[in-house]
Amino acid sequence: MNEQQAMKPYVIGLDLGGTNAVFGIVDARGEIKATTAIKTQQYDTAESFVQASVDALQAIIDQVGGIETIKAMGIGAPNGNYYNGTIEIAPNIKWAHDCIVPLAKMFSDKLEGIPVAVTNDANAAAIGEMVYGVARGMKNFIVITLGTGVGSGVVVNGQLVYGSDGFAGELGHVTMVRGEEGRSCGCGRKGCLEAYCSATGVARTAREMLSTTTKPSLLRDMKPEDITSLDVSIAAGKGDELAKEIYEFTGKMLGEACADFATFCSPEAFIFFGGMVKAGDLIMEPIKRAYDNHVMPIFKGKAKFLVSGLDGASAAVLGASAIGWEI
Amino acid sequence: MNEQQAMKPYVIGLDLGGTNAVFGIVDARGEIKATTAIKTQQYDTAESFVQASVDALQAIIDQVGGIETIKAMGIGAPNGNYYNGTIEIAPNIKWAHDCIVPLAKMFSDKLEGIPVAVTNDANAAAIGEMVYGVARGMKNFIVITLGTGVGSGVVVNGQLVYGSDGFAGELGHVTMVRGEEGRSCGCGRKGCLEAYCSATGVARTAREMLSTTTKPSLLRDMKPEDITSLDVSIAAGKGDELAKEIYEFTGKMLGEACADFATFCSPEAFIFFGGMVKAGDLIMEPIKRAYDNHVMPIFKGKAKFLVSGLDGASAAVLGASAIGWEI
Repeated sequence: MNEQQAMKPYVIGLDLGGTNAVFGIVDARGEIKATTAIKTQQYDTAESFVQASVDALQAIIDQVGGIETIKAMGIGAPNGNYYNGTIEIAPNIKWAHDCIVPLAKMFSDKLEGIPVAVTNDANAAAIGEMVYGVARGMKNFIVITLGTGVGSGVVVNGQLVYGSDGFAGELGHVTMVRGEEGRSCGCGRKGCLEAYCSATGVARTAREMLSTTTKPSLLRDMKPEDITSLDVSIAAGKGDELAKEIYEFTGKMLGEACADFATFCSPEAFIFFGGMVKAGDLIMEPIKRAYDNHVMPIFKGKAKFLVSGLDGASAAVLGASAIGWEI
Repeated sequence: MNEQQAMKPYVIGLDLGGTNAVFGIVDARGEIKATTAIKTQQYDTAESFVQASVDALQAIIDQVGGIETIKAMGIGAPNGNYYNGTIEIAPNIKWAHDCIVPLAKMFSDKLEGIPVAVTNDANAAAIGEMVYGVARGMKNFIVITLGTGVGSGVVVNGQLVYGSDGFAGELGHVTMVRGEEGRSCGCGRKGCLEAYCSATGVARTAREMLSTTTKPSLLRDMKPEDITSLDVSIAAGKGDELAKEIYEFTGKMLGEACADFATFCSPEAFIFFGGMVKAGDLIMEPIKRAYDNHVMPIFKGKAKFLVSGLDGASAAVLGASAIGWEI
């Protein structure tokens, strides 16, 4: 027990989503030793959420030998601010949608003072890749998460880029289509990468292509407003030509964006994470092709294009826990 | 003398341009103690260039008390690679246009083994701002150099971003106008920021505006092909409306580009450097206005827009010398 105390072999990861708050206790190799979860929205205040979290955590902390075995805790959360240990005005969490919650301090106070750090989920994914995934040993890379939105985590010189305010790495919001013809984005502006390449962006591309072409497609059997990116993925998997064109369009835009990102930090790799990546070459090949066609000659052929090495189901918890090793 | 040896109070800076190679010996406050220069293109080989440089340097090194007082040397050069200490395929230098020259090692060998580092001129400018200029105390900022081209140096967590290959920080080559209507750029692609916002880009904007409008302008007194960015600056200074519109157009594009850059590293400041910046508010106001109109809400009002704090005439040498303190 004393030896275990000295080593502190575990970290806690919390993937805080709009629906579930999932906790895992993780070892240095990225093996999840125990997990638990509570409902994020079942609580009216941050205090009651944290108390319920700690109550649920107690059982799994006991399983691994008590709080003495825990080095630190990492939290991946929407609008997480690493510098302040807060989540700030997170629209989808009712106890944090109109305020700044000092979540790191609140958890630390209830967990015998262990260090706790917070960042957003895409940054957590980037640290997860560096600690347990395909970016082990890399010092310069970019993780791009393709989900409801398009997120990113940028690592330069082996350190996550938090910027002057803790909110750096919002590459989903570079402008890809300038002017009034750009699609409206959730951030209030027009033409952002996210408006085209997120899951909702892909569904929107599907609806646009269905209405502007007469090409036959399995997607025509559905009500346009019901189509999701998953339907596009299933249709593409069956060889549907229109669905493949949707991936071609999406991949081209991602590849062109990555060509711009290269001018910034010339990463060793771009690592893609999220449901859409399961389409494999259908999305990755158009990305690589567009990158090669658009990147500056000096960067051509240098960057790798990789798919996340973290297991999908537990990736978010692993990513969050990885922050714990970096504190 | 022994005390001076221990302190090593000076660094050498070399601003290696296509015409002149300017050397300065600089103290820690950024004061230039002695300078000399040779013609870059007067030599057929890198060896003869380095030998002539060292011969010229000897006199000013002696002035400050000998090589024992020199801590290190920094070189700002086109296509300078920090990781390798080389300049690589530099089109405008005849002894380096088709080869890789290990310039750092060559100088170090002739200067009693003092450490020598090389980077490109925009990166040198960024380190210069951090060591002697307006970025003192900042850990996250971007320097944008507006000259023959548009260069950039990006500092994250107090470190210059060199990327995986030493060539990061080429923000002049993000794509601002996509597709075939983008202006041709010197890098071989289309629509780069540099094609619009460099000195030659500004002159090109002038010619375009003169031919597509009938607005009276002082610039109409010149042959279109003779117009330079300096002429635009002079005309704007005299209140010429068309010249002001050219700055408006240029500043708008720079401001929109900076809004994209903010998503990457959320810098504390954007620092502008180069001849065009002398136009002051005529260029800085449109940049700030476009930034405010285009940046993500989360970053709005946070970044400063500054003009370089380095004296124009000696800025390049100071920037190069600053690398010496960082080795």
